[in-house]
Amino acid sequence: MKTQEPLNPSVKEMLDVAKAANVKTIWDRYQSQLPQCGFGESGICCRNCLQGPCRIDPFGDGPDVGVCGAGPDTIVARNLIRSIVGGAASHSGHAKHLAHVLKKVAKGTAPDFGVKEASKLAAVAARLGLPTENRDIQELAEDVAEAALAEFSERETPNAWAVTTLTAGRVAKMKELKVTPHGIDSIIAEILHRTTLGVDADPVNLLLGGIKGAMADYTGCHLGTDLADILFGIPTPVVSEANMGVIKKDAVNIALHGHNPVLSEMIVATAREPEILAEARAAGAEQGISLMGICCTGNEVLMRHGVPTVTTAISQELPILTGAIDAMIVDYQCVYPSLANVAECFGTRLITTMDMAKIPGATHVEFNEEQAGEKAREIIRMAITAFKRRRNKPVHIPQATSKVVGGFSTEAIVAALAKLNADDPLQPLVDNIVNGNIQGVVLFAGCSNIKVGHDQGFVNIAKELIKRNVLVLATGCGAGAFARNGLLDPQATLDYAGDGLKAVLTAIGEANGLNGPLPPILHMGSCVDNSRPVDIAVALANKLKVDIPQLPVVASAPEYKTEKALAIGTWAVTLGLPTHLGLVPPVIGSKLVTRVLTQDIKELTGGYFIVETDPMLAAEKIFAALQERRQNLNIGTRRW
Amino acid sequence: MKTQEPLNPSVKEMLDVAKAANVKTIWDRYQSQLPQCGFGESGICCRNCLQGPCRIDPFGDGPDVGVCGAGPDTIVARNLIRSIVGGAASHSGHAKHLAHVLKKVAKGTAPDFGVKEASKLAAVAARLGLPTENRDIQELAEDVAEAALAEFSERETPNAWAVTTLTAGRVAKMKELKVTPHGIDSIIAEILHRTTLGVDADPVNLLLGGIKGAMADYTGCHLGTDLADILFGIPTPVVSEANMGVIKKDAVNIALHGHNPVLSEMIVATAREPEILAEARAAGAEQGISLMGICCTGNEVLMRHGVPTVTTAISQELPILTGAIDAMIVDYQCVYPSLANVAECFGTRLITTMDMAKIPGATHVEFNEEQAGEKAREIIRMAITAFKRRRNKPVHIPQATSKVVGGFSTEAIVAALAKLNADDPLQPLVDNIVNGNIQGVVLFAGCSNIKVGHDQGFVNIAKELIKRNVLVLATGCGAGAFARNGLLDPQATLDYAGDGLKAVLTAIGEANGLNGPLPPILHMGSCVDNSRPVDIAVALANKLKVDIPQLPVVASAPEYKTEKALAIGTWAVTLGLPTHLGLVPPVIGSKLVTRVLTQDIKELTGGYFIVETDPMLAAEKIFAALQERRQNLNIGTRRW
Repeated sequence: MKTQEPLNPSVKEMLDVAKAANVKTIWDRYQSQLPQCGFGESGICCRNCLQGPCRIDPFGDGPDVGVCGAGPDTIVARNLIRSIVGGAASHSGHAKHLAHVLKKVAKGTAPDFGVKEASKLAAVAARLGLPTENRDIQELAEDVAEAALAEFSERETPNAWAVTTLTAGRVAKMKELKVTPHGIDSIIAEILHRTTLGVDADPVNLLLGGIKGAMADYTGCHLGTDLADILFGIPTPVVSEANMGVIKKDAVNIALHGHNPVLSEMIVATAREPEILAEARAAGAEQGISLMGICCTGNEVLMRHGVPTVTTAISQELPILTGAIDAMIVDYQCVYPSLANVAECFGTRLITTMDMAKIPGATHVEFNEEQAGEKAREIIRMAITAFKRRRNKPVHIPQATSKVVGGFSTEAIVAALAKLNADDPLQPLVDNIVNGNIQGVVLFAGCSNIKVGHDQGFVNIAKELIKRNVLVLATGCGAGAFARNGLLDPQATLDYAGDGLKAVLTAIGEANGLNGPLPPILHMGSCVDNSRPVDIAVALANKLKVDIPQLPVVASAPEYKTEKALAIGTWAVTLGLPTHLGLVPPVIGSKLVTRVLTQDIKELTGGYFIVETDPMLAAEKIFAALQERRQNLNIGTRRW
Repeated sequence: MKTQEPLNPSVKEMLDVAKAANVKTIWDRYQSQLPQCGFGESGICCRNCLQGPCRIDPFGDGPDVGVCGAGPDTIVARNLIRSIVGGAASHSGHAKHLAHVLKKVAKGTAPDFGVKEASKLAAVAARLGLPTENRDIQELAEDVAEAALAEFSERETPNAWAVTTLTAGRVAKMKELKVTPHGIDSIIAEILHRTTLGVDADPVNLLLGGIKGAMADYTGCHLGTDLADILFGIPTPVVSEANMGVIKKDAVNIALHGHNPVLSEMIVATAREPEILAEARAAGAEQGISLMGICCTGNEVLMRHGVPTVTTAISQELPILTGAIDAMIVDYQCVYPSLANVAECFGTRLITTMDMAKIPGATHVEFNEEQAGEKAREIIRMAITAFKRRRNKPVHIPQATSKVVGGFSTEAIVAALAKLNADDPLQPLVDNIVNGNIQGVVLFAGCSNIKVGHDQGFVNIAKELIKRNVLVLATGCGAGAFARNGLLDPQATLDYAGDGLKAVLTAIGEANGLNGPLPPILHMGSCVDNSRPVDIAVALANKLKVDIPQLPVVASAPEYKTEKALAIGTWAVTLGLPTHLGLVPPVIGSKLVTRVLTQDIKELTGGYFIVETDPMLAAEKIFAALQERRQNLNIGTRRW
């Protein structure tokens, strides 16, 4: 297999279209960047002061320290932890945005939004120890919003979202390692400070700082998911579809791209208004308005509204190449600046909406919660206008779609299990792990990355694990990869799952009236929503009176690329999970850092990184990690 | 002149010692890094996601965009503003540390510290609009500390330290450009978020974000200076000396290095305790304990206690090479990890003191304010023990020292001017600017950088400007360069100053009972203390009913190197100052960014960057910028 070859036929088809149209995509841009800088790839390039850039010679012939005397261990660790807080800043920026929306809802200044899930609001408030008796929704919303905003400032007490959502064992471990977060923004600033010239030079100390930064990221992720659920509802199982075929020739096609559901929720609600639909039809769009999601915004609107997913991050340009996307509406994160050029060539209106995230060549409509509906209508009308110009022009839409069953929030999974055992919903899961029907649980998370064949990592590893009776959870672009390739379809359970897993998923499916199994991979949401599988792991650990590092649970990011993914991976390891990476992270310039992250840290947290670029070997190693834990728990192990 | 040739004979002498001893210094490490990476130097290397590193071909033959589609303008702007907030995080981390100390003082938990300057506490409280009537020092200290800590969190109101210390014109300008800071840590996190993959791609929008980050840095700097003055006293003129000759063969030589005066103040106080002095003498140190400063800690203890300055940042290894430094005590920022190796070779105890800033090979004594005196004694005793081992071993100490008159806080300058005009102290300054005795004011700030000849930039430019009757202020390693090279000695006024400047400095000196002039360069403190010259510029602008961009005031950083310097330079430009840089910043990979920073921004803020690496040409350009402003003010201009 050629490494950069995408797995999915529709993606390949669109790349042929791009070639024919002589439009450059990320595949071309990546080729033009080759060979990439080995210093940067190894983490041994330092630009943290103006005496650099400094580079360490990895072969020992040239400099072994930078101008200031920092060696490869220091440089690699500094670079890594700056990346981690780049991720923490992103997730927590998203979460802070939601906290402000919740506060506006409480204050009545965001009239188009509301609290959709009062039960979750109450549950979160109770978990935080806020008074909930005799308090109406507005009051509680304000309290929770203020508690959320207080997570960002430096504080004497540990971050509530970190210590109230984890096991007692993990809370104690954070304290022991001095990595308990005390204010997200404050930690981010501290990490920047300690990585500037002449501050922290101790690689292990730096890595511990990075772990604290990663736990700040975890705090932001969990906060983001909780607040999104409160504002927009807890996802429940939903049937939809994925892939390029969800684009409709005779509809106003609007792609929703980015991350935060604040914008996309309002677009979804507005696009369903009869008046707007009538405008679309009056413009000649016989099929009305067709919404579709990309990247994590796609996950958000799929999870809560069944909006189909058209594609994921690295293939984000390709839907535009169909000639049938009238508008692509974006907020922030993973939105490639290249979209502007492609959109211009194909008549798509690229609409940016956030002051802090503009793209040259795009149309900017500043979105704000005070006028959310109005702004959403303005944006959709731009799409309708674009449709009018596009109508009757040729389009090229690959027809394939895959059936998707998504919407597996923690609550939804527990509810589904409750149909088997209402009193103790987790017991059937425990029983099936113990009896070996389920060999363990693997969470696939993280991005798509042009350096590896699109979907190859996710799909090949997951299929192998499913065959071996591993229960697979997915978020982010991982979930998108599975969606596009048919692995979120219950039929895939019948096609690919080992007998034990098939039996369990069928039992749950039938108990829930589905006349068949659940899909073999449970789509748990966007990348922020990686807190959802943590909630399940915490519940399992608490039920079994063990800690997360004892559980046969592994995380995998076969195609990760963002700083956010580095943050998530680091907190997964901190929480005690073996965490597979399908690309070599930029740390191999330091033997020390590499050893700490892949070996030594196991002694500290129980988690560790497994770096394996070959999907089949990765599946082996992930399975072996599950078996090691099964063995330690004295439950049956299995060779494959 | 060979570019990397240091100006000062003592520095050269110690480099010869290093060569003879075969000890590598930063001069060697820099040579071994050559040639440095041109992509990094131009700002067109991006490592903000794991699809990179991406590089733009500056010659147009290779890729013009990275994998995500970000072009050079986006990449350069993203890199620059990340560096700016690296600086903001450093200055504001320092300031936050001081705020915690002040709070502990208020609460009585830092018994070895106190409020030394109640008048400044009251003045700052009043400026912030805090109630000051009938409040005792502890209460006021707590209020100011809380107000300081509140500067870091996201807030609805603008940062108080930004908007209460600047002209109304600048406050309005910040508002107009949407760059008013609202919470330092929050802005730092926002900048990291907007520079991660797929967020802000608009270079001008990014630069405006960077300006906001720089104004957060300004906030942190002013906060840091105010709190240090409250805790440790407002500097007043003090006579001391500088250069390697301050090391005494028969003393316990302790070098204080880093930035925050919290640690060094306690060391200074403790080293003067009779009991500790007796211990030193008992160990054979006939000359007792000799303290000396390096880098900005050196500036802090010089300004407040007349502790001599031994050297500045890039030559920080050289004092150790004398064989006579018994301990080097460091906190954070600009502390090169290389010190550990050199210290080990020469018997120096390198002592780190901050949990977030460790160095492999150093001794770590965690400093805390609760046990400050105890920790200081522990550290000094380590130095005494090291002295015992070192005693009677050969040392090589260059004997040169320069006389230094420092301690020119804003308050001290105003007090000195008040001796000429008690009712209106600034009037004599204004009169002499108008009549041309003073052609303008130039602030020299920023670091030393191994890429340019040590002190060559500072000294050569300053001498030329002094000759042209420019009043020169200095902070940070710039002040250290002038100290070492005799330019903080009043004699230098007689030797180098033009007649007009000489007359003014002599008049002030004599009115203050000095029987001679002030030095031609006024040492205003550490790099955080760049807020002090701003206070003078603001007072001048307010008095003249103009705004800062109208004043004949220029900033210059001929040898800058840190992210902090980039932050300071950016806020200097935002405040309306032409700001000279003696090294090319890593922006030339983007014509747009380069043009915005050197030209277009003048229309927005009145300030702009002057990039000139040649000292003589730099002096010409700085002088021309002063003359342009004189002309606009309709006061006499002068050609040279």
